[in-house]
Amino acid sequence: MFSFMNKKHLYPALALVALGLTAGIATRSSAARQSVGVSPWGPKDEIGRLNLMTPDSRERVLKRLSGGAVYDLSVEYFIGMPSWQAAGDPPYQMWMTHTPHGDHVADSMRVGSEKSSHVSYSGAAISMYTHMGTHIDALNHFGLDGKIYNGFAAAEHLGDRGWKVTGAEKIPPIVARGVLIDLPRAKGVPMLPDGYRVTRQDLQAALARQHTSLQRGDVVLVRTGRMQVYENAQAYMKNPPGMGLEAAKFLVEEGGAMIVGADNLSFEAFPSELEGNYVPVHTYLLAQQGVPILELVQLEELARDSVYEFAFLGGSLKLRGSDAAPIRPLALPLR
Amino acid sequence: MFSFMNKKHLYPALALVALGLTAGIATRSSAARQSVGVSPWGPKDEIGRLNLMTPDSRERVLKRLSGGAVYDLSVEYFIGMPSWQAAGDPPYQMWMTHTPHGDHVADSMRVGSEKSSHVSYSGAAISMYTHMGTHIDALNHFGLDGKIYNGFAAAEHLGDRGWKVTGAEKIPPIVARGVLIDLPRAKGVPMLPDGYRVTRQDLQAALARQHTSLQRGDVVLVRTGRMQVYENAQAYMKNPPGMGLEAAKFLVEEGGAMIVGADNLSFEAFPSELEGNYVPVHTYLLAQQGVPILELVQLEELARDSVYEFAFLGGSLKLRGSDAAPIRPLALPLR
Amino acid sequence: MFSFMNKKHLYPALALVALGLTAGIATRSSAARQSVGVSPWGPKDEIGRLNLMTPDSRERVLKRLSGGAVYDLSVEYFIGMPSWQAAGDPPYQMWMTHTPHGDHVADSMRVGSEKSSHVSYSGAAISMYTHMGTHIDALNHFGLDGKIYNGFAAAEHLGDRGWKVTGAEKIPPIVARGVLIDLPRAKGVPMLPDGYRVTRQDLQAALARQHTSLQRGDVVLVRTGRMQVYENAQAYMKNPPGMGLEAAKFLVEEGGAMIVGADNLSFEAFPSELEGNYVPVHTYLLAQQGVPILELVQLEELARDSVYEFAFLGGSLKLRGSDAAPIRPLALPLR
Amino acid sequence: MFSFMNKKHLYPALALVALGLTAGIATRSSAARQSVGVSPWGPKDEIGRLNLMTPDSRERVLKRLSGGAVYDLSVEYFIGMPSWQAAGDPPYQMWMTHTPHGDHVADSMRVGSEKSSHVSYSGAAISMYTHMGTHIDALNHFGLDGKIYNGFAAAEHLGDRGWKVTGAEKIPPIVARGVLIDLPRAKGVPMLPDGYRVTRQDLQAALARQHTSLQRGDVVLVRTGRMQVYENAQAYMKNPPGMGLEAAKFLVEEGGAMIVGADNLSFEAFPSELEGNYVPVHTYLLAQQGVPILELVQLEELARDSVYEFAFLGGSLKLRGSDAAPIRPLALPLR
Repeated sequence: MFSFMNKKHLYPALALVALGLTAGIATRSSAARQSVGVSPWGPKDEIGRLNLMTPDSRERVLKRLSGGAVYDLSVEYFIGMPSWQAAGDPPYQMWMTHTPHGDHVADSMRVGSEKSSHVSYSGAAISMYTHMGTHIDALNHFGLDGKIYNGFAAAEHLGDRGWKVTGAEKIPPIVARGVLIDLPRAKGVPMLPDGYRVTRQDLQAALARQHTSLQRGDVVLVRTGRMQVYENAQAYMKNPPGMGLEAAKFLVEEGGAMIVGADNLSFEAFPSELEGNYVPVHTYLLAQQGVPILELVQLEELARDSVYEFAFLGGSLKLRGSDAAPIRPLALPLR
Repeated sequence: MFSFMNKKHLYPALALVALGLTAGIATRSSAARQSVGVSPWGPKDEIGRLNLMTPDSRERVLKRLSGGAVYDLSVEYFIGMPSWQAAGDPPYQMWMTHTPHGDHVADSMRVGSEKSSHVSYSGAAISMYTHMGTHIDALNHFGLDGKIYNGFAAAEHLGDRGWKVTGAEKIPPIVARGVLIDLPRAKGVPMLPDGYRVTRQDLQAALARQHTSLQRGDVVLVRTGRMQVYENAQAYMKNPPGMGLEAAKFLVEEGGAMIVGADNLSFEAFPSELEGNYVPVHTYLLAQQGVPILELVQLEELARDSVYEFAFLGGSLKLRGSDAAPIRPLALPLR
Repeated sequence: MFSFMNKKHLYPALALVALGLTAGIATRSSAARQSVGVSPWGPKDEIGRLNLMTPDSRERVLKRLSGGAVYDLSVEYFIGMPSWQAAGDPPYQMWMTHTPHGDHVADSMRVGSEKSSHVSYSGAAISMYTHMGTHIDALNHFGLDGKIYNGFAAAEHLGDRGWKVTGAEKIPPIVARGVLIDLPRAKGVPMLPDGYRVTRQDLQAALARQHTSLQRGDVVLVRTGRMQVYENAQAYMKNPPGMGLEAAKFLVEEGGAMIVGADNLSFEAFPSELEGNYVPVHTYLLAQQGVPILELVQLEELARDSVYEFAFLGGSLKLRGSDAAPIRPLALPLR
Repeated sequence: MFSFMNKKHLYPALALVALGLTAGIATRSSAARQSVGVSPWGPKDEIGRLNLMTPDSRERVLKRLSGGAVYDLSVEYFIGMPSWQAAGDPPYQMWMTHTPHGDHVADSMRVGSEKSSHVSYSGAAISMYTHMGTHIDALNHFGLDGKIYNGFAAAEHLGDRGWKVTGAEKIPPIVARGVLIDLPRAKGVPMLPDGYRVTRQDLQAALARQHTSLQRGDVVLVRTGRMQVYENAQAYMKNPPGMGLEAAKFLVEEGGAMIVGADNLSFEAFPSELEGNYVPVHTYLLAQQGVPILELVQLEELARDSVYEFAFLGGSLKLRGSDAAPIRPLALPLR
């Protein structure tokens, strides 16, 4: 049913077999035996399944572009925005370093009273945890037993200012087929319920309803509907729905996804289904399969217009050594 | 010679006339009489010439896409990167809030020793001035006499956490024709000299050499060659070449540019050519013409491959109320 | 009963009269007519009642020191500590910029692997709102109608990086008689109830029970008992008890306090008693009377040992232009 | 000549012997054999020589207080202040989160236009490396081979948010005899020359000239004169004079210092005298001897008034887990 079975999408062929084996081993393991994946793209590989993106794959999607509509898949950053602070991470901050009048009083440019009064300078600074707003997780975000995807050890590659490998700056520009899986629409509800754990069947049913097939190399975005309450941080963050482990496996191993994402805070459902691992979907995707995760993706407009297939274009900020980076992706309709 | 003369690109026609008048008034004025521009798109307009972007304009460029190549126009963020700190603005900082071993010792997730040892959590935070790395200036960045483009007054619209109008979150996704003007190539030098002030003639000569015409609504990116020394912050920042005021006027008033940009730190050349204004190119573009500015754009690869015309695609971070935002734009070749 | 009546403490005499008048005017005014106080120490005065501190006043208290006991009046700073974030202010953050192993991997000192392995470097950075932990409010923290104490106008004296007058760097080292007023002890409760508004009578009764008299120039610290739950930020911050306006006036106008303080988050009780002013105790103390406020003072040990009178010694950080600064004051017993 | 020889100051006697041995071992070792010191105060000790401070030691100094003069030993914090950024640490930042007018526009308190206009709210936030301005280094700041003073291992005790042992919050209030050693005065120069490495003989000569003796438990502050150019960060920081290793050993092992400090950026002279260790004075003091270091101490006024002996009083901020903390110490003259 899915393109995973369609050999023409299997590229590179050898890699696929290896990936399948890796995945198989990983997912059959008990928690105690979980270990990070080995990249089929070689021991130096730092980007995992983003290797599925090639000039050919990009051309295939770009040649199908249709019309001039553009969908903005990102949310706004503002003080008080949703952010995960339970483990002490900083909330979003934005402050003015220059304002027209304040800069005139301070004369920070040392140009004197007349010029500082005539020229009205505004400047702002920000600080944030990298997992805020619409963003992509780099492969180093979660690992197992001190190692990350492809066996890179923190003890060797993690300095005080970030990872020397697999940092967000290694994530290439993304141009790929995007797919929206609209779960609330399929279930006939405005939003998935609090704490709902999405199953493989949920995804299959929604895809069938939409008449959408997944293809190898897709950016697959799952809508839970949570984004409707994004402006209310407490409502957005409290006990969100998310993916179960089997759902994530379905997207990658059967669907062939290159990147997965959703409109909620953390993609996966909590609490963990797996003994001994508090974020099993993250470690499965990032550390075992080499699949980056998009979080807090704005999917409401795509859903409103029933756009289930599109070109996904975007570039995440190249934050050297970082475990994630903000991104403002665009969706362009296909014919 | 340029599309400014080509009426079919003039859209909306009325706006053009108004823009021309506005520009005329502004540029004939002495410094003492400089004042902000009035938007031809109405008193509520917050995005200036970005209004030139329409479904039609986007479709025109998208239908000309050719092949699967993609150019990454952004630089990396790293500690020690170039940044303008002379007026006290903060340099880029990135730090780890979670590391595999450190999080195990701290047990920030309160999962106990076994789980915190098995799951290897990496998390980072950043802080930065918004004018670092590849970024776009919003229209509020520079104004005149306490007002910004379209007459919005700081006293009324600027709160402690940013502008209530024209903030970076108002900048739409950008899909437009992009043009590279390669000045070093035209002049037969590897890089423009220190402090060089680019003239109208420089731009015209380079366009002629490239056989490139500007069109209304373009994103026009000027290469000075400075990006070759980006990794060395002191070399990159010291006395850079930049645009003169007439060069900027040429791009907008004759070339019809929607957005202008360059590969240097501040687009314009210093010191100012205009008595009483220390950043006349910025105030001309942002405050008088409503033209956003892209700075620190990575243009080396486009230049290497002689790609002078392309689709420019990108979305800047939607930092509410901000005067600028990082962006990682992509360039896709056209046929 | 209180030293306010004892003329020998009135210094300078002229100032007192002026202060009394100022206070009288201010407190008889309706909310609509509230305005900032004029300093009896002259139009250039930036420290208000801290002028009461003189070599003589310091000598008087220092010569009464007794023994070698020392009380630490400050709390710890830690991630998750109580902090007022409802208006978007940043919580306390602390992060490592250097760790022994991480610095070895990063070699931030560029000394090579051997040296970076031998020398184990730890370094941390912090960020915080200035009103966190034990701190003192500078007089500019709250004003009225755009002015602060002594008539300094924000429009003239407030630059983007702080006040040019009355900043925390102007606060001198504090050496003065300190007095603890232990309200829970007087009331026979472990802690004042949630939201309790302290009255003039409460203070008088507690002072009587303690056999303590206030003297002109005192640092008066009021114990509510809240500090017992400081480590639990939610418990500490939720609906705290605080001073009513009459209680504050009593301390200053009858008691003669130079500085007032308490062990709670914001000194005053909320909601406001005064129409049109959401922080009337703050504006009364800071803007009208020129009295700095100490908040989050650790008073449990003094209370445990029934030390109601002591030498208060401390220096707040000299944060130029700031509206507050952290301080770790010491209390030394007197004979 | 020095109090080290005066047995009545040796307390506890047993500890001294142990300290001597520790020091002896450490300083006779080659670089390759350097290791951290073992505390004579037991395996749980986290404060090293601060244990020398007792009720008796405090009483001895407090009973000698004379008069009401107070010296402020700290510098101001301001944007552009001296700070060591060569290894990527953040400079001092201070910004406004609330200003009277900006808060009125933003209405961050949600009190409406009238109240936000009447009440004028100023609030600031800061961020800084902990080694800026007048500060004290905690014992964990520098260790050897992954361990700090008293053998605590980073692998076991250092979490992502700081050390679980020996953090700045463990530093007690400091009340001790302070001694100023005025080197420029002794040498008849306004300031020690750039890069000058202070010797044991320099200290001895200056003490003799001053007729000052060191005593066990002193806070010994060495003046180089650099503080005269503190406001000019580049002048202050460039190639400063500092202590040589033998000078540091003299202060501790012969002088009996509890804390050492100076008016320069880093106390010690660079480059290192010791093969294989780029900060041998820091590791000697902090990691081997358990002696905290005060840096950037303002000593100009003490020197001006020839105050060589005084009561040193101060409390550093209790930054949990930190390797240093700001302090604003006071010096009070003794009789």
